[in-house]
Amino acid sequence: MIIDLVNKIVNGDFKAISKAISIIENNYSESEELIRKIYPYTGKSYKIGITGPPGAGKSTIVFQLTKLLRREGAKVGIIAVDPTSPFTGGSLLGDRVRMNELSLDGGVFIRSMATRGSLGGLSKRADEAGDILDSAGFDYIIFETVGVGQSELDVVKVADTIVVVLVPESGDSIQAMKAGLMEIADIFVLNKSDREGADVAVNSIKSVLSFRQKLDQWEINVIKTIASSGQGVDELLNEIKKHRDFLFRTGEFYKRRKDKLKFKIKEIIEERLRKNFWTIEREKILDEKISSLELPKANPFEIAEELIENFYQKNFLNETKSFH
Amino acid sequence: MIIDLVNKIVNGDFKAISKAISIIENNYSESEELIRKIYPYTGKSYKIGITGPPGAGKSTIVFQLTKLLRREGAKVGIIAVDPTSPFTGGSLLGDRVRMNELSLDGGVFIRSMATRGSLGGLSKRADEAGDILDSAGFDYIIFETVGVGQSELDVVKVADTIVVVLVPESGDSIQAMKAGLMEIADIFVLNKSDREGADVAVNSIKSVLSFRQKLDQWEINVIKTIASSGQGVDELLNEIKKHRDFLFRTGEFYKRRKDKLKFKIKEIIEERLRKNFWTIEREKILDEKISSLELPKANPFEIAEELIENFYQKNFLNETKSFH
Repeated sequence: MIIDLVNKIVNGDFKAISKAISIIENNYSESEELIRKIYPYTGKSYKIGITGPPGAGKSTIVFQLTKLLRREGAKVGIIAVDPTSPFTGGSLLGDRVRMNELSLDGGVFIRSMATRGSLGGLSKRADEAGDILDSAGFDYIIFETVGVGQSELDVVKVADTIVVVLVPESGDSIQAMKAGLMEIADIFVLNKSDREGADVAVNSIKSVLSFRQKLDQWEINVIKTIASSGQGVDELLNEIKKHRDFLFRTGEFYKRRKDKLKFKIKEIIEERLRKNFWTIEREKILDEKISSLELPKANPFEIAEELIENFYQKNFLNETKSFH
Repeated sequence: MIIDLVNKIVNGDFKAISKAISIIENNYSESEELIRKIYPYTGKSYKIGITGPPGAGKSTIVFQLTKLLRREGAKVGIIAVDPTSPFTGGSLLGDRVRMNELSLDGGVFIRSMATRGSLGGLSKRADEAGDILDSAGFDYIIFETVGVGQSELDVVKVADTIVVVLVPESGDSIQAMKAGLMEIADIFVLNKSDREGADVAVNSIKSVLSFRQKLDQWEINVIKTIASSGQGVDELLNEIKKHRDFLFRTGEFYKRRKDKLKFKIKEIIEERLRKNFWTIEREKILDEKISSLELPKANPFEIAEELIENFYQKNFLNETKSFH
């Protein structure tokens, strides 16, 4: 079953890609086998992350970028994990309709992913959805996510080039700084740059950037755009390509990818340990303990330790055979 | 050392409380011992969670609520984990100054916590900061957090009564629904209710609520406020107390607190397992594997499994003695 799905994905079948992402999103039992099988086909896509505060025009930027990339003949996959994005059902229906038009030619795949109920697994699932698109032969994968909230921000960190979109509103750049956006940006976009205060905003971003510790030789630029008309988006695409060339030239590309692989391995391990630990039997022990205890005297640490002891003892008796 | 700190906290010493929260926030090695020792003194505070989109006026609501509670002689602890909140350094400095004035009488403690770099531990740390304030004898603890982002939303779930603050802006209630705010609210506040569209907004919230599955007998009301002038905040406080009475009368209070205890135990276990797993030695094995491998051929699952096997084998050899 999974092997059929993998074959279809690798051949670029949109239906199969959709199905695969649903399997990952819902964390069905087949999801691990799927990712395992797909993994050897990954590593060819270039990943772009687009983030910024709600209302900055991220989706319109994604739309215009995609249009330019399509003109070059590139295949583009889009993963939107932004609860405020039109792609995930927000209010700017116009963008959504236009984007769906783009996808009619078969060169664009768009998928929105739910951001709630994820318990910290959001970035892992978005990353895996990216792996599916990667193995399906998309040249570029764009991750769009709102720059508020730690788990949302983690999503964009899987990208090779991270673009932070801001608008000339006052205090915006300060908020961005506080939210950690300043630290992750490879490129800044000041969108809606025909609005009042645009030059002030550019200068304020630049002055914050001047305090940022330079970790590498890459110089972070601020690109002015008016995404609604497409103005400046060609310049943004050039800047993204310049950054890509920089990453390859300096070897930074592989270094970053290895860092991400390490993070991924840690996630797999923690998920596995959690699964091994929370057997039906051990869940039952916990439920029984909790229903019989008296608040507020209960000490969560003691209960936790009893369960951990039980875990290691079972493991000792069964040796390691039941753990993978 | 820790026992001295605990004694000071229990006696309501603000400096000691501050120090304790810093220990938790930075996850210093003493943090677990601290929480263990403080735990027997907890369970007396009533916890209120205030959430909603950026700009809804959450901080002003918190300020006005605190003022009313102080008039009743209640001690109030505030934990703000909102990157857009003035308490955490946002733009509305006025609120911050006013709030600091409130705290001069010794009956109000305010603490903001960083939201970034937390890797999923944000709600755990906020909860533990709440335990510190609880043991220090605060009657009410208010958690303020922005209603965007999963980890931010998890913070508010530690509260007994959850208040969702919205404003009359169009689409706001729909966004709230998408972000999962509709599901967690015990009370709604429509702030800035003198603005155009207030009644439409109230009706739209009510109509969404009418579709919500009733899990208990509590009827969710929408309270109209103008927080800047304090209007409606007394009504909100009454509604919070009505909800508290409801929780006690129906036994729901202890049921919810037990659910939270269960969640806490699970968090402790997972943190412990992670610590046991990631010894310096095992980190080193991972780093060596990663530096020697070839991208994109590397399979993260295989590396993860090797490390897990190593973990269980060590555990087998050492029996359980080194794990707590």
